[in-house]
Formats: sequence, structure tokens, C-alpha cells
Amino acid sequence: MKLLIIGGSDAGISAALRARELSGTAQITVILADDYPNFSICGLPFYLSGETPDWKQLAHRTEFEGIEILRGHRATQIDAPNGFVLVQHQGKSKAFSYDRLIIGTGAKPVRPPISGLQSPGVFPLHTMEHSFHIDEYIAQNSARSALIIGAGYIGVEMADALTHRGLNVTLASRPATVLPTIEPEFGHLVEQELRSHGVALWSGVEIMAIELRGGDLNIRSSQGEERTADLVIVAAGVQPDSALAREADIELGPRGAIRVNRSMETNMPGVFAAGDCVETWHRLLGAYTYLPLGTTSHKQGRVAGENAVGGRALFAGSVGTQVVKIFGLAVARTGLLEREAREAGFDPFTVQTETWDHKAYYPGAKKLWLRVTGDASSGRLLGAQIVGASTSEVAKRIDVFAIALYHGMTVETLNELDLSYTPPLSSPWDPIQVGAQAWSRSIQVNQIQEKTSV
Amino acid sequence: MKLLIIGGSDAGISAALRARELSGTAQITVILADDYPNFSICGLPFYLSGETPDWKQLAHRTEFEGIEILRGHRATQIDAPNGFVLVQHQGKSKAFSYDRLIIGTGAKPVRPPISGLQSPGVFPLHTMEHSFHIDEYIAQNSARSALIIGAGYIGVEMADALTHRGLNVTLASRPATVLPTIEPEFGHLVEQELRSHGVALWSGVEIMAIELRGGDLNIRSSQGEERTADLVIVAAGVQPDSALAREADIELGPRGAIRVNRSMETNMPGVFAAGDCVETWHRLLGAYTYLPLGTTSHKQGRVAGENAVGGRALFAGSVGTQVVKIFGLAVARTGLLEREAREAGFDPFTVQTETWDHKAYYPGAKKLWLRVTGDASSGRLLGAQIVGASTSEVAKRIDVFAIALYHGMTVETLNELDLSYTPPLSSPWDPIQVGAQAWSRSIQVNQIQEKTSV
Repeated sequence: MKLLIIGGSDAGISAALRARELSGTAQITVILADDYPNFSICGLPFYLSGETPDWKQLAHRTEFEGIEILRGHRATQIDAPNGFVLVQHQGKSKAFSYDRLIIGTGAKPVRPPISGLQSPGVFPLHTMEHSFHIDEYIAQNSARSALIIGAGYIGVEMADALTHRGLNVTLASRPATVLPTIEPEFGHLVEQELRSHGVALWSGVEIMAIELRGGDLNIRSSQGEERTADLVIVAAGVQPDSALAREADIELGPRGAIRVNRSMETNMPGVFAAGDCVETWHRLLGAYTYLPLGTTSHKQGRVAGENAVGGRALFAGSVGTQVVKIFGLAVARTGLLEREAREAGFDPFTVQTETWDHKAYYPGAKKLWLRVTGDASSGRLLGAQIVGASTSEVAKRIDVFAIALYHGMTVETLNELDLSYTPPLSSPWDPIQVGAQAWSRSIQVNQIQEKTSV
Repeated sequence: MKLLIIGGSDAGISAALRARELSGTAQITVILADDYPNFSICGLPFYLSGETPDWKQLAHRTEFEGIEILRGHRATQIDAPNGFVLVQHQGKSKAFSYDRLIIGTGAKPVRPPISGLQSPGVFPLHTMEHSFHIDEYIAQNSARSALIIGAGYIGVEMADALTHRGLNVTLASRPATVLPTIEPEFGHLVEQELRSHGVALWSGVEIMAIELRGGDLNIRSSQGEERTADLVIVAAGVQPDSALAREADIELGPRGAIRVNRSMETNMPGVFAAGDCVETWHRLLGAYTYLPLGTTSHKQGRVAGENAVGGRALFAGSVGTQVVKIFGLAVARTGLLEREAREAGFDPFTVQTETWDHKAYYPGAKKLWLRVTGDASSGRLLGAQIVGASTSEVAKRIDVFAIALYHGMTVETLNELDLSYTPPLSSPWDPIQVGAQAWSRSIQVNQIQEKTSV
């Protein structure tokens, strides 16, 4: 049995590893367009900051026993009816036949409608190659200032990274607050952290043009404001890289992501897809959405790999868990924001709590902020956001909420969970439960007030 | 409605707060024998180490609005048929009538059969008073060395605390490895940490006698070995303080803990009990056990308080989650050890994994060790243990396992959980999932080998 996998990043390699683990006989080939199989794209900011000095360290793994890895092989056409893929390698085209195909072509950066994106010193950041170009440009031009367009995860991480490298950074964003994946109340906390490390914020702004003027890049907004910088990073989000699939008559969803079922099958028999190029089943929404994340790619790849060799795995769905470290802060979310929950037909109610990451009497206690969103009618947990010090176990605290969402728990039953406690690391009621209890108390008061006003 | 609560520690105060939250009319009185309502007994080692210089900081709270707190009131008799409690206060006895009673008398230290326990310089550690006596003794006698009897949680925490205070510490324990609440493989990691901070281990030893000889305390084992120290702390565990209940014909369980149902009711109508004086419903065992922990006391107290004012709450049960910080390590467990699982009729299989707390390419990555125990027949998760740096989110990682146990998940389905990831804080497959996958792979190999050998 020949299993062919297009793409050697998270989804493709996870699929290959899982298939290898389960099948002793399948012949597994991974073709990748670049030279970097299974590299941690999430690590690019740390390579550019200098914290990870050698880019080779970014490889998740370098051994692929029992898996054929073909670097520099670009798939140019899928012929699904006849079971082969055309591949370009060193200027020549070659056909690879398959019994099962997994598409893991990933995502590509969105190119916003800004004039001058092709100017020297303006870069997207999505691949190893991009980061080499940026690194080289900074070194060769002794760049001292950078402007980042987009204040999502990559934008804020790059603001941190380039500040760490000694550049003066301006972070430009269209929304009024940074990190639109969390609610503005917490976006403000992130902004404080960015400012306190010298990052200039240029928010609520639409960039129209970038122009090279006398050695400097001039960046102009639609309101006519201007900034200059030696370097511009465009971090305006990503879109599925699904052209290959589309041209092979593989069905796409509304946002251009490959349509799959929970077995990670496309509409084309024998063809699976996984990772940043596909739509993702959202466990809370009970619907498919586009939510490209490395964790999800790994899970979808594992399911696709298992099923491609005859397994019957189902992707359990994402609950939208995300975390990012920004200077000394960790910022995490899972589930739905209040706005997203309302759009999905829930009756969301959110309560924000400020507490300590561990007993205040033990040295080093740090503030922790939680926002808990639950359905006012059913009491069901819908989402949570946490901001705190990067040492405050924010990431694994959001995971407690993530598992609660996975199981459809109510906010109130969070209090039943037997969470760990020792004074240096938590409280007898963990901050998660302090947040849950605050939610329960507030909604009671809220409902009593509503009754009174009726 | 008069609600009377005996005991002003975790269970008693949680009960009072919950009753107050739910009932606008109940008259709530808490009587406590000492002067320290709602103090964090778990914080005593940090007061003695000097890390928490002012003992007053150990109060979980100091405001008890709408709750009458009577300090220095010792309950001497419960007359359940007639609904009152006799209380000693300043030499006088007084009867307190009640409609509902909650017993939260807690635990008391076990006094092991050692001669000379009454010698000056030999102390248990369970109450604020104990810690004052120890603190005073160290200061007045310029104590420079301590021997701790018992290497459970209090024992290892006190080894850390007194080392921090500048004393030379010897930790004596009956089992061959410290911390019998985790498996010996991890006990050895804890021992390395203790030794590397100068703690002398005296393991596999039974202490027979303590004797004051020429200003020094001489500690002798049953094997005839001797050590000397200026101070001895006896940390040989606790037992339920249930004498008051027993004398009132309230039913006790086999280990002397007050028998309760999941509504936290005793066999006596109108009398509830909660905390370290009661048996605890264990969610995995499906049985009652004695497992005194502050987190459990808070939860049981909350249930008792709710039900005492007419609620219908049920205690969801403990899954045995525990964590302790020892110097730079955090050590956590949840669920059952392999031995405990076997005794409970499961078919346990355990796999140990060594991994990193976050991507190794990001600075500061630390080793993390996991032991995952699952049922070989059903695949059900039975327990987990984690040892790692105290900055490695060990506590909240064990909580992920704890919630999985709460929901009766299999080891394999842990891979479905949408856990958070960013390179400075985790990996795309969190160490939890790395452990789960190692377990699944090992059990496959194990089962294939078993088949082959059959």
C-alpha cells in the first residue's frame, strides 16, 4: 500500500508517524516543497529574537525511520481519478502514484491591500525561508527599527522578539486593541505589557502604503498618518493553501479551506487532508470553522494517518485553546468569546476576576486575571480567558477550562474538580474555581435584578 | 434557623460561608477551640522557614460578615437528641442549641510509639500553637540541627523549610524511599533534590527513643543506630479528631473517621460533618477512604454548608490529587498508584516518560518526568504522577489528569484534548499527551509479547 503525503510540516509528519506506528507494510512517502521537514514554525520569532540561535534547533525531529522524506519536491497537480500526483523537482516533473493521499499543504500569509509590499525590507513571516531573509536583512542593513503590521499572535510575538534583539518596535493594528482573539479588557493588559517594554502602539489604523524614501521605509495609514522604520513585518493572518486541492476538484468550504469530515476525508475517495489547509470541526459550535493552529494540525494529521492505513479514528474537534507569551505575560483563551458565543446562539454572561496565582503569603505571588463566560440559561461553560505572569501556570490553567469544555461541563461543576494545591503553587480553591464561584454569584445577582425589574 | 459549626478551619469556615451565601435568614455560629479562625495550616512550614515572616498572613480571610465566630470555645459534648452542644469557654460551660450542626473538628497528629516524645525540643506540627512553640524553641536555644521523623508531605516540606532557615536537617523515614504517596522511582528523584540541598536522609529506619543527653537530643532507631539533633519534629501523619462525635453515638468508619454520605450527613439527623474528621468518597474507588486534604475539606464544607440550610448538594468525590514543592521541584500525583489500583481490583499498567516542560529550543527548558497508570484491560486512566521543576506547571498538568479521572477518560482519549501550546510553555503534544502516547505504544508491545509467550 502506497501512502503519499503532500507537505512535511505538522500535519503531514504527524500523519506519517501515526501511519508508520500502526502499519508495518505501508510504503510512506512525504514530499515537501522546501528543505525543512517538521520544523517548528511557531519557533520562528525565537530564532529571530536570538533566543534560539541555531535555526536547526527548530526541527521537532530529525529522524524519520521508515518514512521516505523528499525535500525540494513541489506537488503541482493531483490526479485523483487516476491516483497520482505530479511533482516538480530540480526543474523536472515526475508522477508519484498512490493508494492513499494526504494533503497537508498548510496555510499562506494573507497579503493585505497595501501598496509597496514588494519593497525591500518588507517581509511576511510564515516559513523558514522568510525568517532567513529577515535575519539577513536585519544584519546586513543594521536595522534599528521595525514596524509590524498586525497585532495577532505572530505580531505580538514579533514585537517581543525584535525588542529582545534590540530594535525599536512599532506595532500597528486595525482593531482598537491588540490581540483580537481575546476581549478588549485583556487586550489592554497586553498593551500595558508591550508599552512597558518600549513597544510603540499604533492601533485602530489601516495601513495603505509602504514606500522607500531616502533609505527609510515610510508607512502611511488611510488617515494620512505616517511612521518610518528600517524593516516592516506583515503579520496580517493566514489563509488556507488549498489551490492544489481546488484544481483537483476537491471540495472547499466557504473560507477556501479544504472540506473534510471528522475522519479527515475529503470528498475525493482515498484523499485525506489535515492541518492549516482544512476546515476544523469546532466541538462547541458543532460546526466547521477555519482555525489554523499547530496543536490542531498534529491531531488532525494523526487521525488522517491512522485512517489512511485502515483505521477508524475521528477528530474530536477543537475547543479553540490558544496561549501566547508576551514579554513577562502569558495570555490564554479557550472556547468562545462573549461575542462569538452570542453569534452562535448562546446566551453568554461573562465575569472577570482578579486573584493571585498562589497564596499571597508565600513569596512571589503574582496577579492573575480570569474571564469566565457561561451560558446564562443553562449554566454551561462557554469559554475562558486568563492573563497572568508567564510563571503563573496560565497555560495549564486554561487547559483545565479546555477539558471542561470538551466534556460540556457547567461553570458550577468546576467547583467539584479535585485540583491540586500547595501554597507556593495555588490556593485551596484554585483561581479557576474562584472564577467559577464569582460567575455563579454574579449570575444569581443578575437574575434577581432582572426579576425585580420585570 | 440556628446553624452551629464546631471547628473554624477549612471545612467549618467553608460551610459557614456557603450557608451565608445561600441563606439570608440562618443564624450562623462557628465555635473554635483556638484563636485562629480559617488559618492556612498548609502554610506553617513557610512561617517556620521565614518565607512568611508574619504568622497573621496565614489567615485565608479575616472578614466573616454575617457569621458569628467564637474563639477559645471548646466543644465538650454533643447532645444530638436534644439539639445542643456543651462548650467550655474561660473555665465555664455553656450550652449552645442548634437546628443544624456541622462537625469540622479536623485531624490530630499521630503519636508514634517512641519513648521520650515529651522531651523538650520534640514537637508535632499541626496547629498554629505548635508552630509558635517550634519558632520560639529554635530562637531561644539557637538550634542548629533538626531531625524530622516522617517523610510524608509535612516531613519533606519541613526539611526544606528548616534548611531554608539555616538548620542542618536529617529526614528519618520508615519506608526505604521518601514520600510514600508517590512511587519509589519518583521518590528517588525527590531524594536527589533533598540531598543536593544538604538534607541527610535516614531511610528505612524505625525510631524507638528520643533522649535528652547533655543538651542534645539523642535519637535512636530499633536497629541501634543513633543521631543527635537540637530539635525533633514528629511528622508521622494525622488521624481524624472524632472523639466528640463518637461520644455522641455518631457512627465512625473503620479508621475512626466520622461516617458520612455524599450529602455530608452523619447517621444523626440534622448533624453534618466535613473535613479531616470524616471519611472521604473516592470517585475512582467508588468507596469511602480516609484522605485528609485541605482542598477536600473546602469542598466538603461547602456541600455541608449548602445542605445545612436546605440545599441538595452532593460531594463529587476526591480523585486523590496532591502536589508539594520541595526546594526546586514540584511533585504531584492524582488517582491511584499502581499498587493501590491493583488492590482495588484493576489491572494496572504504568509507563514512565522523561520529556521537556517546553520546546527544548526555547531557553530554560527543564526535564519533566511522568508516570501514567492505566487499566490494561479497559484502557481507562487510573492515575498519574509528575515530577519536574517548580516552574514547569507540574501542578496544573496533574490537574489535567485529575479532570480526566473525574470524567473516567481512557488514556488514549487524552490525545483528543485541545491543550494549549506556545514554545516557551509546552509542545504541540503537551507532555501529558507524550506520556499518554508512550503508554499506548508500550501496552501494545506488552500485549503482543504476552500473546507471543502464550
